[in-house]
Amino acid sequence: MLAKPATPSTPIHDLITQRWSPRAFDANKQISRSQVLALLEAARWAPSCFGNEPWRYIVWDRARDPASWQKAFDCLAESNQAWVKNTPLLIVAGADPHFRHNGKDNRWAQYDTGAASMSICLQAVALGLAAHQMGGFDAQKLHHAFAIPDNITLIAMIAVGYQAAPDILEGEVRESETAPRKRQPLGSVFFEGAWGKAIA
Amino acid sequence: MLAKPATPSTPIHDLITQRWSPRAFDANKQISRSQVLALLEAARWAPSCFGNEPWRYIVWDRARDPASWQKAFDCLAESNQAWVKNTPLLIVAGADPHFRHNGKDNRWAQYDTGAASMSICLQAVALGLAAHQMGGFDAQKLHHAFAIPDNITLIAMIAVGYQAAPDILEGEVRESETAPRKRQPLGSVFFEGAWGKAIA
Repeated sequence: MLAKPATPSTPIHDLITQRWSPRAFDANKQISRSQVLALLEAARWAPSCFGNEPWRYIVWDRARDPASWQKAFDCLAESNQAWVKNTPLLIVAGADPHFRHNGKDNRWAQYDTGAASMSICLQAVALGLAAHQMGGFDAQKLHHAFAIPDNITLIAMIAVGYQAAPDILEGEVRESETAPRKRQPLGSVFFEGAWGKAIA
Repeated sequence: MLAKPATPSTPIHDLITQRWSPRAFDANKQISRSQVLALLEAARWAPSCFGNEPWRYIVWDRARDPASWQKAFDCLAESNQAWVKNTPLLIVAGADPHFRHNGKDNRWAQYDTGAASMSICLQAVALGLAAHQMGGFDAQKLHHAFAIPDNITLIAMIAVGYQAAPDILEGEVRESETAPRKRQPLGSVFFEGAWGKAIA
């Protein structure tokens, strides 16, 4: 399977290095129940402001409930459907923007949910799976399709599965799959001591 | 050193299990340059919507620049200062709420920054360090102290260091340090197939 390890200037943990967001998934390999639960447990133990756990997740396991999986799939952007069609597991990440303990605005709700989703992506790597987050979906349609309360902010959908070889993909999607990974130079967004002073 | 491993219902990766947010840090153990860089590289390789890398970080290394560290420390809530006083490294996590490629609102900016900060926390574990994120700080004061542009949303400060024994802490802070970790039951915020249907 295609590996596209990160290329940091200093060694970092393998789990982080190995994580990337492939689009080639194997339609014939299912995810076990214990794998699904491990993905969610990883998110569950993420840190959050005031221990509020603002994240809310719904998972759709194609093998257990193909109709619901399809309904979730139908909310994705067409450009994502082209490759997500092979993934056995779909997840949506949402956030409750109010604190449980006092009902006030929780300005860390999305930030904390991002941490929980990162845990899912890293736990996927640990399980020999891959996870790919997507912003391209119709949140309103998803709200309606699954009667998700209006107050929940739907942020990302996550496709999870076993990777397949890039040659199952076509066109631009295939090009993205095999293109080198890139990031801005460290010092352009990581500063030391003062704003704009590149770390070195 | 006190370990407070997560207690998931299904095994998850050690790096995730071992991460928690201690308050007892060792004031005498410095963080090396390669450790600082590894923390930031871990964040740098986080995923983001459109590869936008919306996160912005400033680090303050007490050993290298005690005056700037102090200025950052002075922006923390008093309740945090009580224990952060022993940490050798402070970091602020911020987000640019507009996409680089088109200047439009990036509704994933905070979510993606949360993922990057989670990578810092997990990389800290990998390095034998601990990281503790805080919402309790004066963002306006920090903006002013370091001439951080108005358009940057400052979300969290992160204290990083080597753990110390809990008995260096006092009162409620010490109680928190040794209290059992807890999370809501998995099925109360992780659903399957439909909103509100607890995963099991």
